Amino acid sequence: MEGLSQAEAFARIRLLRSPNVGPVSYRQLLHRFGTAEASLAALPDLLARGGALYQPASESRVAAEVQAVRSAGARYLFHDSADYPPLLAELEGAPPILTCRGDTALAQRPCLAIVGARNASAAAVKLARMFAGELAEAGFVVVSGLARGIDGAAHQASLSGGTIGVIASGIEIAYPPEHTELQEAIATQGLLLAEQPPGTEPLARHFPARNRIIAGLAAGTLIVEAAPKSGSLITARLAGEAGREVMAVPGSPLDSRSQGCNQLIRDGATLVQRTEDVIELLTTFQGQPRSILRETAFDWTMTEDAQDPASIADLLTTAPVAVDELVRQSGASAGAVQLALLELELAGGLVRHAGGRVSRS
Amino acid sequence: MEGLSQAEAFARIRLLRSPNVGPVSYRQLLHRFGTAEASLAALPDLLARGGALYQPASESRVAAEVQAVRSAGARYLFHDSADYPPLLAELEGAPPILTCRGDTALAQRPCLAIVGARNASAAAVKLARMFAGELAEAGFVVVSGLARGIDGAAHQASLSGGTIGVIASGIEIAYPPEHTELQEAIATQGLLLAEQPPGTEPLARHFPARNRIIAGLAAGTLIVEAAPKSGSLITARLAGEAGREVMAVPGSPLDSRSQGCNQLIRDGATLVQRTEDVIELLTTFQGQPRSILRETAFDWTMTEDAQDPASIADLLTTAPVAVDELVRQSGASAGAVQLALLELELAGGLVRHAGGRVSRS
Repeated sequence: MEGLSQAEAFARIRLLRSPNVGPVSYRQLLHRFGTAEASLAALPDLLARGGALYQPASESRVAAEVQAVRSAGARYLFHDSADYPPLLAELEGAPPILTCRGDTALAQRPCLAIVGARNASAAAVKLARMFAGELAEAGFVVVSGLARGIDGAAHQASLSGGTIGVIASGIEIAYPPEHTELQEAIATQGLLLAEQPPGTEPLARHFPARNRIIAGLAAGTLIVEAAPKSGSLITARLAGEAGREVMAVPGSPLDSRSQGCNQLIRDGATLVQRTEDVIELLTTFQGQPRSILRETAFDWTMTEDAQDPASIADLLTTAPVAVDELVRQSGASAGAVQLALLELELAGGLVRHAGGRVSRS
Repeated sequence: MEGLSQAEAFARIRLLRSPNVGPVSYRQLLHRFGTAEASLAALPDLLARGGALYQPASESRVAAEVQAVRSAGARYLFHDSADYPPLLAELEGAPPILTCRGDTALAQRPCLAIVGARNASAAAVKLARMFAGELAEAGFVVVSGLARGIDGAAHQASLSGGTIGVIASGIEIAYPPEHTELQEAIATQGLLLAEQPPGTEPLARHFPARNRIIAGLAAGTLIVEAAPKSGSLITARLAGEAGREVMAVPGSPLDSRSQGCNQLIRDGATLVQRTEDVIELLTTFQGQPRSILRETAFDWTMTEDAQDPASIADLLTTAPVAVDELVRQSGASAGAVQLALLELELAGGLVRHAGGRVSRS
């Protein structure tokens, strides 16, 4: 945490744990007020403009969290620190704060995510092991989600070469139970990452957020076996949205567990048969991620002007709309629109979607 | 054979069976001299210009062939007759004459080729049967090559709905032996086509030429299971070269019989999982084949001019070169170059390649 005081680190954690603060509003506040301490001080006034009362996270709760992280042998990773995973930092909704155990240098190396079905076929588990082992041997770090089936096989095969596990729970909670030993092994030999604070149980609603971290850490995501509408396909879509390579291992259409991967290939994912196919794609990718989000650079600047925030909020419906569109329709400056949206978000009235789009909650 | 006299039909067969006459030179001669009878009359003079002696096919041999076709219950199909398969006619190297048994109206309906491994897996045979049966039910005619494995399964499943078999031997020779009954069933319930004259055994060197007919008859070719470097992949490439849709059924990379199809998909073939995927592609294709050969329209016109044919021949090496390039380099007219190439071909000195390219033999 170079250059980050203990007090500011504490304030950052407190800011992120405060109601309705998400990754985007967190970074907007930091951009606007310079520090988390200043943001926390300004929040009540900012929200008063919209007529709402606002109560940030309590200091005692944050102090307990910091203690729990320490007890778990973990530490915090802030989005602007040197050891924060560089590809993940490029994501629009990158977690501003992660907790971690293990070797953060792994995330600085070329990473590939390998995910797939929990109830994977024996052939798919064999393939996951083959891809993960050979990629680790070739110098790549394998990222996955510690689930049963494909995830576990990918971690096991890359444990000695380099593996990163991203969990949906707090850093000190092992899940699934049969992977308790594997999770501990990853924390000591590899890198274990969690976005949720300690004490968080692995709830289904946290999985998509966890999956975006898996996709965001890696230059590409390889899906080994996936049924239609499975979580692995969400990870694939998130990787695609982030402009990363999406690869899938095909299978017979007669096996329903292959149909998700086959559909991904139909939708544009690259079919891979062997490790060389993956390396070829990642090697041409290294250094120049083709992220769409880089091209549609996000405007963090906010300015106050005569525009009434309420009139901008009135333009919103539950259908996601681009912020640019709101700027055009409102006639207000981009900064004023961003500010109005931030106020609405902190008041619990805004949902942020992929690609910088927003809607009423 | 509307408007085609018995004598001209005979002359056409004789012209095509004459030494060094291929589909392209056959059509060039017909274009230049109007009829096959006139072409045969002009051939000795044409060849004398190059200093070569030329002996067309003997009338007795052609008479014997015509008798054999009749005895087999077959008849001739000429490239410019109304019942010649319309999509096949678009091919640059379309067979000028086919022999056939059965219902030529089948080739006027939307056709899909289904090909694949002879030593196919049980799962692939099941898939071939499923695709062929459902496509025939949906009104498509299934084209294949009567080989063991995928081909046979595709024919069997589409026999009542509509199937076309293309064989590499003469029309009266059944191959492979275990498909003798199937071949007879196709000749009576479907359509059986052969390019080679009666008496021709199914030699390996005839298979690629047969495969181009399979690909040429159909709006798209579906490969169900294919090992790397198999004949099915040649059919796929020929379909692609002809601007037709190429589709492949994926399989596990652990099964070597799937690796050809998987590679095809990597190379741009469309992955299909179910019949609806095929129909969707063919429906958007119908009426507007995206053939590349249509765009680079072939110039059939030949003219004589002062240019010495030998100097054009001198420009050729064993490396294939575009005719346009020869026109540019020689400074001669396109017609003069075509004529020089025709003379060289008839003298046995030219090989024609895909895309209108030529080389020294």
